[in-house]
Amino acid sequence: MAEQATATTDAPVRALAWTGDSLHLLDQRRLPAEEAWIRADSAAEVAAAIRDMVVRGAPAIGIAAAYGIALAARRGDDLAAATAALAAARPTAVNLAWALARLQRCVDAGAGPDAIVAEAQAIHAEDVDINRRIGAAGAALLPGAGAVMTHCNTGALATGGHGTALGVVRSAWAADRLDEVWAGETRPWLQGARLTAWELQREGIPVRLFVEGAAAWLMQRGSVQAVIVGADRVAANGDVANKIGTCGLAMLAREHGIPFIVAAPVSTVDVATADGASIPVEQRPADEVLACAGQAIAPAGVAAWNPVFDITPARFVDALVTERGVIRDPGPDAIAGLVDTPAAAP
Amino acid sequence: MAEQATATTDAPVRALAWTGDSLHLLDQRRLPAEEAWIRADSAAEVAAAIRDMVVRGAPAIGIAAAYGIALAARRGDDLAAATAALAAARPTAVNLAWALARLQRCVDAGAGPDAIVAEAQAIHAEDVDINRRIGAAGAALLPGAGAVMTHCNTGALATGGHGTALGVVRSAWAADRLDEVWAGETRPWLQGARLTAWELQREGIPVRLFVEGAAAWLMQRGSVQAVIVGADRVAANGDVANKIGTCGLAMLAREHGIPFIVAAPVSTVDVATADGASIPVEQRPADEVLACAGQAIAPAGVAAWNPVFDITPARFVDALVTERGVIRDPGPDAIAGLVDTPAAAP
Repeated sequence: MAEQATATTDAPVRALAWTGDSLHLLDQRRLPAEEAWIRADSAAEVAAAIRDMVVRGAPAIGIAAAYGIALAARRGDDLAAATAALAAARPTAVNLAWALARLQRCVDAGAGPDAIVAEAQAIHAEDVDINRRIGAAGAALLPGAGAVMTHCNTGALATGGHGTALGVVRSAWAADRLDEVWAGETRPWLQGARLTAWELQREGIPVRLFVEGAAAWLMQRGSVQAVIVGADRVAANGDVANKIGTCGLAMLAREHGIPFIVAAPVSTVDVATADGASIPVEQRPADEVLACAGQAIAPAGVAAWNPVFDITPARFVDALVTERGVIRDPGPDAIAGLVDTPAAAP
Repeated sequence: MAEQATATTDAPVRALAWTGDSLHLLDQRRLPAEEAWIRADSAAEVAAAIRDMVVRGAPAIGIAAAYGIALAARRGDDLAAATAALAAARPTAVNLAWALARLQRCVDAGAGPDAIVAEAQAIHAEDVDINRRIGAAGAALLPGAGAVMTHCNTGALATGGHGTALGVVRSAWAADRLDEVWAGETRPWLQGARLTAWELQREGIPVRLFVEGAAAWLMQRGSVQAVIVGADRVAANGDVANKIGTCGLAMLAREHGIPFIVAAPVSTVDVATADGASIPVEQRPADEVLACAGQAIAPAGVAAWNPVFDITPARFVDALVTERGVIRDPGPDAIAGLVDTPAAAP
């Protein structure tokens, strides 16, 4: 991967850019201190960038993987090997498998490199459109004033653009239906502090950070009118895999009578996965918990547990917002209907 | 304050040591990287050490303040001014006011410097004894096997020795009634990662760290058999002020049917405070959330909310363990009886 510094600009926030013969990825590990871009010229380089968390966020991972196949097709590389490498890069997000399956259908239909590139670009463009629909549907669901709490980063940086849960925040802010955002810092990777605060600050949307431990106290004080998060996978029964910390927020929101909303594209729904217990939850090295911002914070040799995701039982989800609208209290029937339903006309 | 390095030894973990004419405080801000001791020669230096979190933990703060008065008495300093300076050092912990009131009664009774020093030493020695009683009572309350979750640091470092909630852990481990401890890292000050993991590792008690966001998922997986925490103040109705993050753990424990236990000396109970709403909750600078281990983790200028404590409503407390035994489902009557009851014979 080639690395190149790019000066801060007033351009919209974006995680990736396709140049026609390479994929440029904003190195999210280095935000907010630095806006550095990495160039990937092959599927293997894209897979490494996904694995190493240069790019993260389920929809953005899916788009990056699609461009990875496009690069392999352009280079004449083995497409089956490229697909296998990309599929293995991260285990939990279903969008990755979804994007690769869509490209595979294109390949199976005999598409050449140009058509494969076009398919990847279509996935990217559709994602932005999908997020704007999610944003509009979700914004209408918010109380219309007050503050929302969010977790991790589900914004432009996590998607093709606009964002899922943070897309709802953007749309609600644009519609003057929101006063403030409470962003959890999201240890151990600090996506809330590093990425969400950066995106929102850049767009002038008022944001306040808090440590995860403060979530319940914020709710108890009446400071939060809704909790909105993204999803890495939604099972057939409505269980939701998302960033570690999500299921606790869902339970605390229920305890306080605060709506808990999940915003995600239909591609995140995996009807082949019966329930949350069937979702593989990625474990990452203990070192990520034993350090913070590159500094050791615990005694050497101490053990730590570092699951990347947790499973929120469907009964704690008050609403699932997709590009096809809002499902209240999502359960198996509504989830099945969602996947079978064709998209409504714009 | 004079600073002096002390080599790591196999001595028991302790937060403070009285030498007869000065108070030595282990600088807890520098653990676990370094065991450095600070010497305080006056009440003003002790007050500064409390304010700057060289020493922390409600009981340890009370003991340090008592020695601060002892130093003032030895030096012939103005005791009213010393008391005022110490009382203002931290607002939430009631042990601080309790210790100062006890020293005041001693002064009012005409005690000279030696008697005042002896009273401070008595408070210190009694705290260790109290913690051993809390430990024994709490250990009997634990399931007898499995893992307990704890938060922040309530160990020898937070007290005169042994610890409150962590004293229960120590006693349970010694009685072979415990397999493992799950310690939340406790952002923003990371007392769990820096202090609790250090204490437990040093004593050979198995400990695993987790980020606060992972607490609910740990409970959902059935990995936790009890949650045990300390308290900075217990109100007359049983509401508990403790480290930010506590009330969320209490609610999540209830959701999962896991006992939530508060361990604290009777001196933490403040019957003059009707309920949690009357407890002042200290707010600290946003900078502590915007940085981790001294490194900036968020964009410059972003806002953050940094309450040090939260209030756990009494209804979420399954048991309150003091040196006088166990109160199940603590409410106003039991709390009043606790304070009125003389200590049982050893």
